[in-house]
Amino acid sequence: MGAKSLTIGVFDSGFGGLTVLRELLPLVGDAHCVYLGDTARLPYGSKSRETIVRYALSSARFLQRQGAELLVVACNTATALALDELRAALTIPVVGVIEPGAEAAADACREQGTTPGVLVLATQATIESHAYARACAALGLEATEKACPLLVPLVEEGWIGEDGDTARASVTAQVLRIYLGEALRDAPESRALLLGCTHYPLLRTEIERTLAELGRPLRVIDSAQATARVVARILSENGGAHGASTGIGEATCEFFATDSVRKFERLGSRFLGRPVGEVQLVDLGG
Amino acid sequence: MGAKSLTIGVFDSGFGGLTVLRELLPLVGDAHCVYLGDTARLPYGSKSRETIVRYALSSARFLQRQGAELLVVACNTATALALDELRAALTIPVVGVIEPGAEAAADACREQGTTPGVLVLATQATIESHAYARACAALGLEATEKACPLLVPLVEEGWIGEDGDTARASVTAQVLRIYLGEALRDAPESRALLLGCTHYPLLRTEIERTLAELGRPLRVIDSAQATARVVARILSENGGAHGASTGIGEATCEFFATDSVRKFERLGSRFLGRPVGEVQLVDLGG
Repeated sequence: MGAKSLTIGVFDSGFGGLTVLRELLPLVGDAHCVYLGDTARLPYGSKSRETIVRYALSSARFLQRQGAELLVVACNTATALALDELRAALTIPVVGVIEPGAEAAADACREQGTTPGVLVLATQATIESHAYARACAALGLEATEKACPLLVPLVEEGWIGEDGDTARASVTAQVLRIYLGEALRDAPESRALLLGCTHYPLLRTEIERTLAELGRPLRVIDSAQATARVVARILSENGGAHGASTGIGEATCEFFATDSVRKFERLGSRFLGRPVGEVQLVDLGG
Repeated sequence: MGAKSLTIGVFDSGFGGLTVLRELLPLVGDAHCVYLGDTARLPYGSKSRETIVRYALSSARFLQRQGAELLVVACNTATALALDELRAALTIPVVGVIEPGAEAAADACREQGTTPGVLVLATQATIESHAYARACAALGLEATEKACPLLVPLVEEGWIGEDGDTARASVTAQVLRIYLGEALRDAPESRALLLGCTHYPLLRTEIERTLAELGRPLRVIDSAQATARVVARILSENGGAHGASTGIGEATCEFFATDSVRKFERLGSRFLGRPVGEVQLVDLGG
C-alpha cells in the first residue's frame, strides 16, 4: 500500500489521544488519520475490564469501517485492558501505547547506566491491570506504579499552566506534590518517570517542576512520542510513509466523537496543539 | 396500591443518588426500593443533552421493567436535561430533584425574611441547562448558578472529611475556597446555598466551614432531603406509605449497576451511610 492511500485509525476515550496524534502527524507522511474520541462513555480509567473491552471493540470496529488499515490505541487504559482482545478481533495491525512507552523508559534508564527502575503514573484501571509492570519486566526494568485519578479532571478543567489562574494552578501543584511524594517514597531507585496516560503530557512542565522541588529530577518519558515513533517504524518497514522529514500539513485528519462535538472542538485543540476543525458526531449505541 | 407492594425505582449516573435513597428510606414505610447506578456511562455531568436523555431513558425503562411504580430521578443532571422526556416516555409518576430543591431553598429564604436569593452549586451540564434558575424564578427566587466540576471526582476519591488525610482534605478545602469565593462575589445577596448535585451532601461540613471562613455563613439546603419529603408526600396522598415514623429496616432495597459491582459495593456505602450489600450487574447496551 502506498502512503497516499494509507488510512490510520486512532482512538481514545476522549481528547487525551490527541497528544498521540499530535506526535504522529509529523511522522506519517501524507497518511489520512481518522480519530475517534468515545466521549459519550469517557472516562475509561475508572471502569471495569469488561466494560472497557466492550467500549474499545466498538470504537475500533467503527474505525475499521471508516477504512483504517492500521489502528493506534491512543489510550493507556484501553491498551492495558483490551489490546489482546482488539488484536484477536481485528484483521489490521494494532499498536498500543504501553509497549512503546516501556521501551522508551528502558532506553532512558540504559542511557543513564543506572539501576533500571521506572515510576509509572496512570489511571486507576491502567495501574490495577499492571500492564506497565509486565511490559517493563519483560525489558528487565522494575516499575513502580502509581494511580493518579485526579489528574485527568484537573487537565480537562484546565487547572494548569503558567498562563492560567494562580490559585487553580496551585491546586494542581498540591495534588502533584501528594501523588509524586507518595510515589517517590515507594520508588527510591527510580531514575525515569513514565507518563502512562495521554492526558499527562499536558502536565509535563508541572510534573518536572514538582520533581525538582522534591529533589528527584527524574527523566520524564512520554508514551505518546514513543508510540508515534513505533508507528513510523512500521510504516517505514512496509515502505509506506515518507519518514520523519514530512510536515504536519501533508497528513490529513478527520475527527469523530460520540458526545458533544462542540466540546470536542473547544477542548481538543488544547491536546492537539492546533485547531481540530470540524468534528462529526457518531452514535456507537452507548 | 398498598405500601407493602409499592416498588420505587431510583436512578443516578453512579453512587451520588444513594444520598437521596438514604433520605428516602426512613420516609417510605415498607416500600421496595430498586436502585440503578449507571456507572458504565458516568459521569453525566460533563456530557451533552442528547447523550444524557438517551442514557436516562434506558435507565428509567430498566427500572420500570423491574416493577417500579414511581420513579425518582436521583441525579440533578438527568433531572435538568431529561425530566420532560422521562415524563413523556413513562406511564408512572416521575419525581426529579430540582423542583424539591428549589422549593426548599424558597422556604429557607422566606423563613429568613430576606431578599430571596440563592446560590446553586452543580455540575457543568446542570448549570448550563439553567434548570435551577428556571425552577427558582417560578418561586420568585433569584438563583446564581456555579458549576463546580472538580467536586465529584474529589468526593469519589474520598479527599474529604476530618478523619481523612490532611494533605488530601486541604486540596478539597482549597478547591472549595476557589469555587465559593468566585460564586459569592457574583451573588452578594444570596442567603442560602443549594447543593445541586447528589455528591455534594458528602461535602456539606467542608462547604459550611468554607462559608464561615469566607464570612458568609449561608444556610445550606440539600436537594436529597427535599426530594425525599416530596416522595413521602406523594405516597401519603395516595394512602400508601406509613409516614415518617417508620424505620430504615422496614423498607427493602435492591441494587443494580452497569459497571463493576465490586466498586459499587465498596464506594456505595459511603453515600448510603450503611453497607449496600449485594449489587447486581446489568447491561444496558452502552
